Amino acid sequence: MKELEIMEAIKTRRSSRSFEDRPIPEDVITDIKDAIMHSPSGSNAQESHFVIVQDKNQILKLKRFAQGVSGTPAAIVVLCSNKQEALIRGGQDTAEVLRFVNLGIVASFIILVAQSHGVGNCPARSFHQQSIKQILELPEEVDPELLISLGYTDQKPRPKTIKSVTEVISHERYNYSEN
Amino acid sequence: MKELEIMEAIKTRRSSRSFEDRPIPEDVITDIKDAIMHSPSGSNAQESHFVIVQDKNQILKLKRFAQGVSGTPAAIVVLCSNKQEALIRGGQDTAEVLRFVNLGIVASFIILVAQSHGVGNCPARSFHQQSIKQILELPEEVDPELLISLGYTDQKPRPKTIKSVTEVISHERYNYSEN
Repeated sequence: MKELEIMEAIKTRRSSRSFEDRPIPEDVITDIKDAIMHSPSGSNAQESHFVIVQDKNQILKLKRFAQGVSGTPAAIVVLCSNKQEALIRGGQDTAEVLRFVNLGIVASFIILVAQSHGVGNCPARSFHQQSIKQILELPEEVDPELLISLGYTDQKPRPKTIKSVTEVISHERYNYSEN
Repeated sequence: MKELEIMEAIKTRRSSRSFEDRPIPEDVITDIKDAIMHSPSGSNAQESHFVIVQDKNQILKLKRFAQGVSGTPAAIVVLCSNKQEALIRGGQDTAEVLRFVNLGIVASFIILVAQSHGVGNCPARSFHQQSIKQILELPEEVDPELLISLGYTDQKPRPKTIKSVTEVISHERYNYSEN
C-alpha cells in the first residue's frame, strides 16, 4: 500500500465552489458508497443515513434552500443523522456529540475518495434544514446535517490563512514542542 | 494518483485494542502532523488543538483515566477543542455542532494515514475529561474531546454487525434505491 496517495489527497483537497456540467462516473459513486458502508461509528450506533442526489432537478431544488451550495454540482451527498437512534444505540454522549464526530469521519471518507478520483468537493452546513428534509422526504426522526457537493472543477482554490504548526500541535503536553 | 490505496485503507481499517511494544517511526508522525495541518475546518475556525503523546510514562498516566484506551499504545493523539474560539471565529453552530464534525474529519485523516502505514489505531471517547486535561496541562478553554491510540498490532479484528446498504443509503430521496 503506497501511503503517498493518501497524503496527496489530503494535501491537495480544497473546497470547490464552481463545477463543470459533467456527471460523476458510476465507479466513483460506487467507491463513495463503499466508503460510507465502511465508515466507523462510535458504539457502532450507525445512526447516520445518506441520500445521494444526482438528478438535476432534485439538485436545483436542494440548492434553493442551501446557501452553502455554490455552483451547480453534479451530485450532492446529504449526510443525515437520527438523534433518537443515536440515543438508543449509543447513549447520551452519542446523541449529543459523537454522532457529529461520526458524520465528520464519513464526510472525510467521501471527500478523500472524491479527491482521489479527481472530483471536486465542498462540505456545507449552511442550509435550511426543514426544507431539505421535506424535499428529500426524510422521516421525522432523520435530520439532514451536512451537504457535500461533488463535481469536476478547474477552479483555482482561493487563498486561506492557517495557523502555524506550533499553535496547533503540542508534544507530550500543551504548548511543548519536540526537543 | 491511484485511488485503490485510499479505498484499501478505508476497507481494512478496524479499531485495534492491543499493541506491540514498538515505537511509531518518525516519518509516520510527520505524515500525521501534515494531515492535521491540512484538515479543513468549517468557517476556517481552526478551533482544534492536538497533543501527540509518545512518552511511555505520559501514556500510562493518560490510560489511568481513559477507559476507552485498551492495551498500551505506542502513541496517543489527543484531539482537543476550544469552544470559545469556535464561537468567536465560527459562530454558534460551530461552537455547538460543527467543531465536532471538524474533529471527526481530522480524526479520519489521522486514522487513514496511520492505516496506510500499517499502524493500528483506535479512537476513544470514553475518558475522564478533567483528568486528561490536567495531565496535559491544557488551558481552561481547551478541552480534550477524542483520544486516538496508535501502535503496531497483529490482533485479529472482532466481528461487527452492520446494517445493509439499502438501510443506510438512499438515492434522490429517502428510501428510494437506484433504478
